[in-house]
Amino acid sequence: MPITDPSAALEGDGATALRLDRAHVFHSWSAQAHLAPLALAGGSGCHVWDHDGRTWLDLSSQLVNVNIGHQHPRVVAAIQEQAAVLATIAPATANLTRGRAAQAVVRHAPPGFSKVFFTNGGADANENAIRMARLHTGRDKVVSHYRSYHGNTGAAVVATGDWRRVPNEYARGHVHVFGPYAYRSEFWSTSPEQESERALQHLAHVIAAEGPDSVAAILLESVPGTAGVLVPPPGYLAGVREIADRYGIVLILDEVMAGFGRTGTWFAFEQHGVVPDLVTFAKGVNSGYVPAGGVLISDAVAATFDDRVFPGGLTYSGHPLAMAAVVATIEAMEDELVVENAAAVGRTVIGPGLADLAARHAAVGEVRGTGVFWAVELVSDPVTRAPLPPATMAAIKAGLLARDVLPFVQDNRVHVVPPCIISPDEAREGLAVLDAVLTAVLEPSGSTT
Amino acid sequence: MPITDPSAALEGDGATALRLDRAHVFHSWSAQAHLAPLALAGGSGCHVWDHDGRTWLDLSSQLVNVNIGHQHPRVVAAIQEQAAVLATIAPATANLTRGRAAQAVVRHAPPGFSKVFFTNGGADANENAIRMARLHTGRDKVVSHYRSYHGNTGAAVVATGDWRRVPNEYARGHVHVFGPYAYRSEFWSTSPEQESERALQHLAHVIAAEGPDSVAAILLESVPGTAGVLVPPPGYLAGVREIADRYGIVLILDEVMAGFGRTGTWFAFEQHGVVPDLVTFAKGVNSGYVPAGGVLISDAVAATFDDRVFPGGLTYSGHPLAMAAVVATIEAMEDELVVENAAAVGRTVIGPGLADLAARHAAVGEVRGTGVFWAVELVSDPVTRAPLPPATMAAIKAGLLARDVLPFVQDNRVHVVPPCIISPDEAREGLAVLDAVLTAVLEPSGSTT
Repeated sequence: MPITDPSAALEGDGATALRLDRAHVFHSWSAQAHLAPLALAGGSGCHVWDHDGRTWLDLSSQLVNVNIGHQHPRVVAAIQEQAAVLATIAPATANLTRGRAAQAVVRHAPPGFSKVFFTNGGADANENAIRMARLHTGRDKVVSHYRSYHGNTGAAVVATGDWRRVPNEYARGHVHVFGPYAYRSEFWSTSPEQESERALQHLAHVIAAEGPDSVAAILLESVPGTAGVLVPPPGYLAGVREIADRYGIVLILDEVMAGFGRTGTWFAFEQHGVVPDLVTFAKGVNSGYVPAGGVLISDAVAATFDDRVFPGGLTYSGHPLAMAAVVATIEAMEDELVVENAAAVGRTVIGPGLADLAARHAAVGEVRGTGVFWAVELVSDPVTRAPLPPATMAAIKAGLLARDVLPFVQDNRVHVVPPCIISPDEAREGLAVLDAVLTAVLEPSGSTT
Repeated sequence: MPITDPSAALEGDGATALRLDRAHVFHSWSAQAHLAPLALAGGSGCHVWDHDGRTWLDLSSQLVNVNIGHQHPRVVAAIQEQAAVLATIAPATANLTRGRAAQAVVRHAPPGFSKVFFTNGGADANENAIRMARLHTGRDKVVSHYRSYHGNTGAAVVATGDWRRVPNEYARGHVHVFGPYAYRSEFWSTSPEQESERALQHLAHVIAAEGPDSVAAILLESVPGTAGVLVPPPGYLAGVREIADRYGIVLILDEVMAGFGRTGTWFAFEQHGVVPDLVTFAKGVNSGYVPAGGVLISDAVAATFDDRVFPGGLTYSGHPLAMAAVVATIEAMEDELVVENAAAVGRTVIGPGLADLAARHAAVGEVRGTGVFWAVELVSDPVTRAPLPPATMAAIKAGLLARDVLPFVQDNRVHVVPPCIISPDEAREGLAVLDAVLTAVLEPSGSTT
């Protein structure tokens, strides 16, 4: 029987949400005892609200997934309609909605891609891409970047380059290299071009030392996201493609965060003149309205499994409800020019606005990004580039929340990653709040540069 | 732009579903070139249908997940209502629906469990349970069964004991033992009691040889499912609990397939007098209407992460739409006595019906199960117990489909795993078809024993 909770009648829904959360919900990537989560009740477009009707401008897209904004009517309707017909069906069947979703994804793929393997999210997309690459090449090793995140499951988390790998390192065959990051170069470079060349040389040297014939895949985020929106410098991804080709290595580009409009194109790699062998995606493909991810498979890799069993799978692969959200999301993004909007707002408002912020606040060490995918890197010293300390970052985060902006704060950075549908005015509003908070926290006396 | 497909107007939806599937959908656990999937369009209760209105009785529950049946109105409505309010929100927030879902799961847990970590499905539930066990104990190794399945991601698939592990063995620290299987004993036993004792001795010996202080977890399906509905013999799980306690090993019971009513109780382990430390679940928790899974965490393990960061997480942990389906599914199962129905139909119809089948068909080597979780093991020789060959199993599968029954056929077994809501008459109808097909395929002359 549902338990009638006597205290529930005495408190509002927001209080109930918090009480149940603290009593029963175990949270991701956290120590559990001291969390004070925001209880959110609803949303629309670029805004979310709590149970008391207080509203925030969402500059986070939650976990950088709500590309189409909150509660897009067309996607909501598609979910409701599919729910009325058939919520779930086994992946061994054919399903019309699933076929349409695969077709919609393939529509935005480069030539030479016609098949999609659907998963529940980004982690298992990367798991299955790694599996395909290993079996396609008959090799074991996977080379990926430090400063990367590829998911929390066994292989995906060991491919990951950030701290989240370290307590989870139970899979073999994973090798990490430093990728380009001109602002904090590992290669003593003095220009983006040099950073690109030197990072490529480093990658080539590590692969040579590991034995190129043992490397199945190079797995990279096209634009490393949580690591800091590290847009690759000119030539880097093309150089990686060349190295992969030289040794018959499968190039997997992780577009879980960067894909489906985030960077102002359908896929981020389009801006770098490369075509990978496998593309992993999730988040933006249906804005996370129903959990879904997948692998977009080049015909050459797909052919490996024409007559050979692919040894991977999952109960909810191509789940009809998730697929209905994929179809509606992609069609709405096409019809409403959502990707074009992301590009335009990035080019005309966010990019210039952040450049202006950088010019006026000494603490802004660098701003970088494209589309609606930006990072503001904050430093306590513009010369040494020492990151702002955690307490100051916490004050900035609190300041943004207090001024009704929901931020994505990571290490010493504020990521400006609103939904792709954000209007120029909403973007300006968000940047103005960021400006005010930086001033209030960092220059309380009004001493801007 | 959505492409208008000129051929689409010339064909029915079923043909379109098949064409798009073959063109664009990459399938789980399969060679891709020669698949001929059934195109299913809808369902209700224990039935599914195609685009031409042909209907099948679903004895598979798809992948043994639709415990509440297809398109339960209360769950569909809950999804539609949640979709209208808030489809998705980041896991770092508190969310009322998520809190209620955790509360609903905890309601059916043994004493000493109050927290739930939600995932997208069973694989990442096991991934995170393994992670918790390793960090809680400070040890690495995970002991699991051959003849098991725990998911397709990096660690989960290496914990898996069946063939699906072998091409995916890239994680370290995994050790496998044989579990009890009296019909095909690995231990030369002659009774279930002896099988239990000897399997426990084998487990204890392997753990001793591996070094008990190196073992973080014993991970077992409470009732190994795809491996053959291997209901543990008396005393086995209690003996495993004792071994785990002796060495401070975390006992993880995988209830992904067995949980939420499948065996006639909320969790299968309730029938074996044991309480694990971690319970993983998915499938039945919301019948897979929206992808979801999770880990039910004992307070002792949860406390490890009160002040220490839990290094696992995912974008869709506690996804509101999935959580709405969890709340509605559990409440409907409670109100409609769905678990009690599974127990009663198993005890009064399926159990006796399959025993009768076994008595009348020489090819039925053994039937075993509980609730709506049964396996019919088919052999070509009742003395040697040689499995029926694949071609004969394929004929049985085809025969069932031809007579409007959707089966779950695995190796030399037909699993009888209908929704938990199946009526006695539907169950009798399914068994009668199975009876007729066994006769038609195996005894075409009418020569039953």
